[in-house]
Amino acid sequence: MNKKERVFNFSAGPSMLPIDVINEVAAELANYQESGQSVMEMSHRSAEFDKIIKDAESDLRKLMNIPENYKVLFLQGGGTTQFSMVALNFMGGTHKADYIITGQWAKKAYTEACKYGDIKVVANSEDKKYTYIPKVSKDDFRPDADYVYICENNTIYGTHYNELPDTGEIPLVADMSSCILSQEIDVTKYAAIFAGAQKNIGPAGVTIAIIRDDMIGKAHPMTPVYMDYKVHAEKDSLYNTPPCFAIYVAGKVFKHLLDMGGIKAIEKVNLRKAEKLYNFIDNSKLFKCPVAKEDRSIMNVVMVTGNDVMDKKFVDEAKEAGFINLKGHRSIGGLRASIYNAMPEEGVDKLIEFMKKFEEENI
Amino acid sequence: MNKKERVFNFSAGPSMLPIDVINEVAAELANYQESGQSVMEMSHRSAEFDKIIKDAESDLRKLMNIPENYKVLFLQGGGTTQFSMVALNFMGGTHKADYIITGQWAKKAYTEACKYGDIKVVANSEDKKYTYIPKVSKDDFRPDADYVYICENNTIYGTHYNELPDTGEIPLVADMSSCILSQEIDVTKYAAIFAGAQKNIGPAGVTIAIIRDDMIGKAHPMTPVYMDYKVHAEKDSLYNTPPCFAIYVAGKVFKHLLDMGGIKAIEKVNLRKAEKLYNFIDNSKLFKCPVAKEDRSIMNVVMVTGNDVMDKKFVDEAKEAGFINLKGHRSIGGLRASIYNAMPEEGVDKLIEFMKKFEEENI
Repeated sequence: MNKKERVFNFSAGPSMLPIDVINEVAAELANYQESGQSVMEMSHRSAEFDKIIKDAESDLRKLMNIPENYKVLFLQGGGTTQFSMVALNFMGGTHKADYIITGQWAKKAYTEACKYGDIKVVANSEDKKYTYIPKVSKDDFRPDADYVYICENNTIYGTHYNELPDTGEIPLVADMSSCILSQEIDVTKYAAIFAGAQKNIGPAGVTIAIIRDDMIGKAHPMTPVYMDYKVHAEKDSLYNTPPCFAIYVAGKVFKHLLDMGGIKAIEKVNLRKAEKLYNFIDNSKLFKCPVAKEDRSIMNVVMVTGNDVMDKKFVDEAKEAGFINLKGHRSIGGLRASIYNAMPEEGVDKLIEFMKKFEEENI
Repeated sequence: MNKKERVFNFSAGPSMLPIDVINEVAAELANYQESGQSVMEMSHRSAEFDKIIKDAESDLRKLMNIPENYKVLFLQGGGTTQFSMVALNFMGGTHKADYIITGQWAKKAYTEACKYGDIKVVANSEDKKYTYIPKVSKDDFRPDADYVYICENNTIYGTHYNELPDTGEIPLVADMSSCILSQEIDVTKYAAIFAGAQKNIGPAGVTIAIIRDDMIGKAHPMTPVYMDYKVHAEKDSLYNTPPCFAIYVAGKVFKHLLDMGGIKAIEKVNLRKAEKLYNFIDNSKLFKCPVAKEDRSIMNVVMVTGNDVMDKKFVDEAKEAGFINLKGHRSIGGLRASIYNAMPEEGVDKLIEFMKKFEEENI
């Protein structure tokens, strides 16, 4: 593939994958490691696939330093399915859970949880259009809550928990769909983590759940069988046919990250990419970032010109120049550059160059 | 790809895909139609993907002659998720449903439905190890049942409904995971059809649901949002990020079938493949098919030698010769050749040759 043909895709997800991974997949697509078949055709009970899924799990464990007492599950249905699974599985004690609402996705998770238990909204940043992460203290949580729920990185609004809330002994559950594998984290601070693959992990169609053992096995009696974490944990994600191909590509992404030096290495690049872009915006006369500085995401950079016509002009001209999907989420408008792990630093550098030029021409 | 390198994969699923489809996917994997990106990286809100999913739907509608008053949905979670969705969505009337148990999968669907309503087992073929399809008459069903459920093709046991039960006015719901697109059917005889992709449609990770409009919108109040057909129907399968890549490959399989002449054409080949194999088995001194002749599946051909050691020897030697996954399901043992649409007729011919030789050497 001619590298010049490749666009810089700033989509919020699905988004870019490492080109080396794509080329590897293409090369072995019709005949995986001389097995005489494509991974797309492979029985999920075969020795070949068994190695693929076990390697993917063990590489993810290495990358995130996941302790032995956490299960790693490969599931289907995206974050939306997790919203229900979290509520159906983790409210087996007092049937109470505390939610912090930092955007549309957290709100959807909250709405879903309300079907199954007594849910308290502990804090909500809707008052300022979700442009910040609300500060909470340990006393804000109900001490007998079964868990506290956060959306760690808010894709639509460009915010991120740069400091976790102190929940004391209450288990913390986090949606990490748009920040998993972007920075080093301490998994032991969480009781459960989940993430759709289509941002930092692989193609859409697989969802990762990382769940501490003691959280499993207390599902609501009405829980659909597919939504019981225990069912998947007991069968190592092979209770039914998993999304084999998506798991295979995710596994390649994990190996690619390990080869790069792990999360410590990619975090460095991510911080540098985000810093450059925010610096440019904060000094721009045309572009502004509405997000509180201490709560900014290094994955989703939200910005506005303050003028819808100008925003549209920018999106259109950027697309022509090979920078695609810079439109903000349809619910808030404006602009957004999602710069996940697989966005090359060169993509950010060139975007800044392009923004500079656009600013000069339009101010 | 050297054709000789390709194995004949008789797996019950995931299983073979048309080699032309695989080669096309490989060729455009890194740069889909000069879009500068892989389909794996593509936003599900992009114009490119919009065309992919709309074409897939419209081609499937053509292939199966699906009327306008049926929705076609692309979902995640496999048949297992459908077991719950069927029960959660379709029991909005009397909360009664009637099930026919023809094997493990129907039984799992039944078990799941019992969580949400009053379920009657109308017939059960467990008495003869699921080797036949029980005969039922209209009077066996409760006239006020919200639906009747069948598993149309029983992958594990090699049985198939060669005649549908007469349910009168009661909506008929069918799991067609292992027979969809194998023969012409009349969609209007069903209120709902579902199928996991990994047998006749595409790679694992997408599930097709074909639902008559009047069945949608009566979900149980506890239904998880992802499990409400209405949610997906209203958003044309884009309520959340769909399994884009699996849908794209499925779309290519649909086009491939249309190019071949549609279901009428593939049905002819399928009938010929199955007839050859059953004829050989029925005349064999070593292999036997335990399934009632009138209830045999043309997709999953179950057989036994009556001797576990001999079965194992056959599976091992067949594998060496390039015929893989001929082992019966782990729950019943024996042998099974799944000969889905993408198994070339040549594969069946060569398998028969191999079986003949094996018989001569081992009897």
